[in-house]
Amino acid sequence: MRTFKSLLITLLVSFTSANAADPSTSFTRADLSAANSLRERALSDATSWQLVESLTTEVGARPAGSAGDRAAVAWAEREMRRLGLANVRTQEVMVPQWIRGEAELSVISPAPQSMPTIALGGSIGTTSEGLEAEAVMVKDIAALTALPEGAVKGRIVYFSNRMERTRDGTGYGRAVPVRSQGPGEAAAKGAIGVVIRSISTSNQRLPHTGTTRYKPEAPRIPALAISNPDADALERLFAGGKPVRLRMKSTSRELPDVRSANVIGEVPGTDKAAEIVILGAHLDSWDPGVGAIDNASGVAIMMNAARLIGQLPVKPRRTIRVVLFANEEFGTSGSKAYVAQPQDQLDRHVLGFEADFGAGPVWRLTSRVNPEQLPAVDQIHRAMKPFKLARGDNEARGGADLDGLAKLGMPLLSPDLDGTDYFDVHHSANDTLLMVDARALQQSTAAFAVSVWLGAQYGGDWERVATVKPPRR
Amino acid sequence: MRTFKSLLITLLVSFTSANAADPSTSFTRADLSAANSLRERALSDATSWQLVESLTTEVGARPAGSAGDRAAVAWAEREMRRLGLANVRTQEVMVPQWIRGEAELSVISPAPQSMPTIALGGSIGTTSEGLEAEAVMVKDIAALTALPEGAVKGRIVYFSNRMERTRDGTGYGRAVPVRSQGPGEAAAKGAIGVVIRSISTSNQRLPHTGTTRYKPEAPRIPALAISNPDADALERLFAGGKPVRLRMKSTSRELPDVRSANVIGEVPGTDKAAEIVILGAHLDSWDPGVGAIDNASGVAIMMNAARLIGQLPVKPRRTIRVVLFANEEFGTSGSKAYVAQPQDQLDRHVLGFEADFGAGPVWRLTSRVNPEQLPAVDQIHRAMKPFKLARGDNEARGGADLDGLAKLGMPLLSPDLDGTDYFDVHHSANDTLLMVDARALQQSTAAFAVSVWLGAQYGGDWERVATVKPPRR
Repeated sequence: MRTFKSLLITLLVSFTSANAADPSTSFTRADLSAANSLRERALSDATSWQLVESLTTEVGARPAGSAGDRAAVAWAEREMRRLGLANVRTQEVMVPQWIRGEAELSVISPAPQSMPTIALGGSIGTTSEGLEAEAVMVKDIAALTALPEGAVKGRIVYFSNRMERTRDGTGYGRAVPVRSQGPGEAAAKGAIGVVIRSISTSNQRLPHTGTTRYKPEAPRIPALAISNPDADALERLFAGGKPVRLRMKSTSRELPDVRSANVIGEVPGTDKAAEIVILGAHLDSWDPGVGAIDNASGVAIMMNAARLIGQLPVKPRRTIRVVLFANEEFGTSGSKAYVAQPQDQLDRHVLGFEADFGAGPVWRLTSRVNPEQLPAVDQIHRAMKPFKLARGDNEARGGADLDGLAKLGMPLLSPDLDGTDYFDVHHSANDTLLMVDARALQQSTAAFAVSVWLGAQYGGDWERVATVKPPRR
Repeated sequence: MRTFKSLLITLLVSFTSANAADPSTSFTRADLSAANSLRERALSDATSWQLVESLTTEVGARPAGSAGDRAAVAWAEREMRRLGLANVRTQEVMVPQWIRGEAELSVISPAPQSMPTIALGGSIGTTSEGLEAEAVMVKDIAALTALPEGAVKGRIVYFSNRMERTRDGTGYGRAVPVRSQGPGEAAAKGAIGVVIRSISTSNQRLPHTGTTRYKPEAPRIPALAISNPDADALERLFAGGKPVRLRMKSTSRELPDVRSANVIGEVPGTDKAAEIVILGAHLDSWDPGVGAIDNASGVAIMMNAARLIGQLPVKPRRTIRVVLFANEEFGTSGSKAYVAQPQDQLDRHVLGFEADFGAGPVWRLTSRVNPEQLPAVDQIHRAMKPFKLARGDNEARGGADLDGLAKLGMPLLSPDLDGTDYFDVHHSANDTLLMVDARALQQSTAAFAVSVWLGAQYGGDWERVATVKPPRR
């Protein structure tokens, strides 16, 4: 039986150690203990899955400017309120409206056949008769550039490069210029159409879309993608040595810009409420699938991480703001509108997190912080020990939506989602709920929730970062 | 140094044991030794792969009556001659000509969305406006039958049953009546359209086609299939409890019958040349894919097994006849034409093999022989020991193309192809060369070659079988 005095001392010691900053850490014991509760809670919580299921089932595909896009904005506002986020609101954003239409690709010779195809985002259509020409196969933009003058004039250029499967998305980074710049480069050399091997690691017969950007000084030409198995078949025909003649048809077209919105919700901070920890994910999706991994998963991770933090008995020091950005896929309209805020508002964003790489799991923690805060990141990494994360470097590039803020010097913390299988599905009809691993989504939500929580509780200041590398996309 | 006498005795003993039937076996040692050579040769031979590559690349899809079908017949005649088969010829067959057209399926409410869909083979089209109705979900035909009178009148019936993955195709056998008979049964109960969950084990967003047969006494109604992920999404909408309204559109139609052909080639027999060991595989394919696993693989296995046997230094005793049947998929036209031969010609078919279950590997040897020949089958199984095959029962059902001959009492030997992944791909756009495992195809070719060879060399008679079970399809 304890004496009254010893009990009092014990209580005093507990109180002191729980609330004062431990000299060896930037986080209080109470913060670290709350991080553990958060992790346990998130690892048995089904809300992220339910959000992905709901968004993909009740809204489905939501390309910029579509009815699905509008439905997604309404869905997000409603769900943020239901989850208990505060200050739920929208920020109006004008978005381009590109209509995919129908696309057809046929091999005319040497072996007539039709191949499932999809227009690249932003591609112009063909005339109603389509276009037909001999095709020239090149591996990538370097190979195209190396061709002699006139080599592709009046021809269809076929880009054969196959992307490499990687965990961190670097394979995508190396392969994607063929899609984003290939059609523009081919047009500049006189080509009349482009077909690419999908920027994809899948062996399924579904082509993958994604944005292409033309060169202002060259004509715009129609650009289509085919699946890996069809690309293989086409290359077997090229290997046969006979001329390969293709026929392309596409009804893609543009309509005037329309209204969409960023959807914003918060967990208000306390003593540092003026400082914002921003959680970014894009709400729009490409249209062939229902955007389950790209990016209902990111949306769900961020909404639920904020909800779980909001349900802790202790309120966060800094304000946690979830921003579901409009139209990331076809020009990052929402992100551009968001950084058009007054400078003093932008300066309030002291730390950023972005989820736009599928459902996870999280396998690594990287950062882009002022070197003064690297010890704090190391402490966050240690506090996340049960997740068994690799400690990445301080070269995190974030995603496309936080790029504007990052360029202004906002520090980034990046719980890296495992992208090994991401490009099997990304931007294809296969982006469905069946491709989301519920346990991975749970783990990712937990890892984001814990790192966001600790980011919001950090005892020091998140100082600005001097320079920021360009984003992955 | 041997004496002349001992050498002579050795030679005599070798000669005798190599050519006389060993009392313990139905096969000579020379036959068994040739089987081993055949196996070794086949396991390092790339011809089957080259045939699959050539048929899928140069011909591609070949549904009955199409330009691809005609090209496939020309391809098969040419390739059989090139491979050294004898008596290469065609048997003219009239085939139906069903034109798939385009199909569309939309959920109108509660969550508007479009789902990739495909018409079932033989399905009638809709009017150009399509048809729209509330949908009624039932699991299968038994569940439909159990509904009260009028429950589906004027409605679209959605069949939700999901097929089970099995190695031997029994999961398909249990699931496929929904596709083959479901639309007819639903029409008989007053439904105006049918949508089915694809008869498929895949989680990819590609629907699977296959033949449906209407009931003569009921109206014909349009019938579509959706992929497993879309079926899941549709069922989530049904689970929400609100009425599910669907819109179907299809331009499927029939044209008059046209000419196609069975393509036949042989390895002539010697002392039992009048007896035919038939190797059946169908040359046609469904149209969404290029028919690599269904059934360029079976075609290649059979053509190459015959070629490899033809290249042995010893000629087979019985005649080995490869028959590439026309239009298995949409009514087994080729098989029906084949069994329309005079009875004395049919009686010459003493043993049958069929390959129509993908590229393999072969994992089991089953049979349907007269019980008197079971010891011979056991010996063949033992002679195939390096393949590590399970010894199946004597209830082999063969495939659809040999069904007619089997019903006439022809014995069957069945090196069973492993179908675990077969229904991920079967009858979908995903049936491409990328889905064929080159090593499995090599092993399957070897297993067929050895068992066909031994079947052709059997010292006894392949006696007729009393009764034959119905085929798998």
